[in-house]
Amino acid sequence: MKLIRFGEAGKEKPGVHIDGKNYDVSGFIKDYDASFFANGGLPHLEWVLAEHRNMLRPLPADARLGCPVANPSKILCIGLNYAKHAKETNAPIPKEPILFMKSTTSITGPNDVIMIPKNSVKTDWEVELAFVIGKKASYVEEADAMDHVAGYCLHNDVSEREFQLERGGTWDKGKGCDTFAPLGPWMVTKDEIADPHKLRLWLKVNDTMMQDGNTDDLIFNIPQLVAYLSQFMTLLPGDIISTGTPAGVGLGFNPAVYLKPGDVVELGIDGLGVSKQNVIAYRND
Amino acid sequence: MKLIRFGEAGKEKPGVHIDGKNYDVSGFIKDYDASFFANGGLPHLEWVLAEHRNMLRPLPADARLGCPVANPSKILCIGLNYAKHAKETNAPIPKEPILFMKSTTSITGPNDVIMIPKNSVKTDWEVELAFVIGKKASYVEEADAMDHVAGYCLHNDVSEREFQLERGGTWDKGKGCDTFAPLGPWMVTKDEIADPHKLRLWLKVNDTMMQDGNTDDLIFNIPQLVAYLSQFMTLLPGDIISTGTPAGVGLGFNPAVYLKPGDVVELGIDGLGVSKQNVIAYRND
Repeated sequence: MKLIRFGEAGKEKPGVHIDGKNYDVSGFIKDYDASFFANGGLPHLEWVLAEHRNMLRPLPADARLGCPVANPSKILCIGLNYAKHAKETNAPIPKEPILFMKSTTSITGPNDVIMIPKNSVKTDWEVELAFVIGKKASYVEEADAMDHVAGYCLHNDVSEREFQLERGGTWDKGKGCDTFAPLGPWMVTKDEIADPHKLRLWLKVNDTMMQDGNTDDLIFNIPQLVAYLSQFMTLLPGDIISTGTPAGVGLGFNPAVYLKPGDVVELGIDGLGVSKQNVIAYRND
Repeated sequence: MKLIRFGEAGKEKPGVHIDGKNYDVSGFIKDYDASFFANGGLPHLEWVLAEHRNMLRPLPADARLGCPVANPSKILCIGLNYAKHAKETNAPIPKEPILFMKSTTSITGPNDVIMIPKNSVKTDWEVELAFVIGKKASYVEEADAMDHVAGYCLHNDVSEREFQLERGGTWDKGKGCDTFAPLGPWMVTKDEIADPHKLRLWLKVNDTMMQDGNTDDLIFNIPQLVAYLSQFMTLLPGDIISTGTPAGVGLGFNPAVYLKPGDVVELGIDGLGVSKQNVIAYRND
């Protein structure tokens, strides 16, 4: 299944994507939140689609999409998880996963704008495969890890490189700005993706291909990340974990290239859809 | 006012602490969450106490306390914010605030147990003054910053030093383990604390004083932190920001001293109460 959430930002309702169209399921499902994933929401949604497919109302083609998961308790991200990307940022290949966190206030819809933060001169792009936790995970073994994954989604891990790398402390400062986590269009349930470690992922800026990688280059794969991260903290249903970005970010160019108002970013992953963000100056609304 | 939350972990109800006793206010207030702080909850609670003080039911003296704030969207922490503590960890005095994040799954009640994580040999203590955001904050000026603060609480920023410093990547790995954020007993509203930058804070392990500092030693004070952090991410009502720890952590001893099962940690801050945690080995329940 392909889960979507649609409607005004902050007031999204749950829906599904089937054969190129989006449908409202809010008459059957409250929302795709921690409680949904923890309490059999996915099999229930499957039943809804089997029993009530004909009752579902299609949405207008221009309906706004939000993040397909509601109110994750946290977004964990893995740094430098593609060997070529580690190289372009002049970082050594990590011996164990590098963890940082993204404030959940950075979440935005897949086709919403990216706002350049005030005082930012180094806002950068990062196409990433994110996965969504479906079942509480604490000290999970690698062999059992996939039982804790509900599905996957496309993520642009937007990053301010000066805030991240030149302002002291951890990377978290450059990762959590408003609109820095466009997620979606869909959360695709794991049964629909034969092998999450063999997916092409790409990102264009103003129609120029900047990143073109494949998740078969991941240094640490999804079961390894679930097992590893769950040694340090409890992962809750609905939590989003982003697996890192391949080579081709703005920081890696010589000289570096960063986003500016007017730019258009498009990205996609095989089977997980495409998203598109217009870049604007910060505005307060 | 001194806000408390009481009852079984995960099912806490709101209450207040008045003159040494705890009272249930759950008949008047749903919970102390983002919506409470954003929608005039504090003045409403003040009205409840003025109008209905006699109706409030006192709680048994042994009622369990939880974190006094419900479901914060994030916990932001400042590292090395006391000059003497920076020195004991062999770190330079930071030029700007060092930010890291703590997973909200680490939150526990003020007198709950601290569990040593599996595979941990360096679990350490950190008494801290935390403050709670009362009003959404984005690009706030220092002069307006205190308008965005609801109150203060006592926090033990429990830290696993090997996970934090020796496992690659950011500090977040060693800060978010289960039970690593005992918060409370109270959230004290800001009107009750004349000067948050002149409070003694202390921590004992097994009755031995380990930390004994004063918030007048803070390098970056509360208005500076609100203004600074709100340049990088939006702070939401209920968010918890912990201001750093004074000298005297286990890492600073030579040789270093860490917590082990059977230890008892007690801590306190002038006006914000005292908390006490028994240290146990990790258990899954």
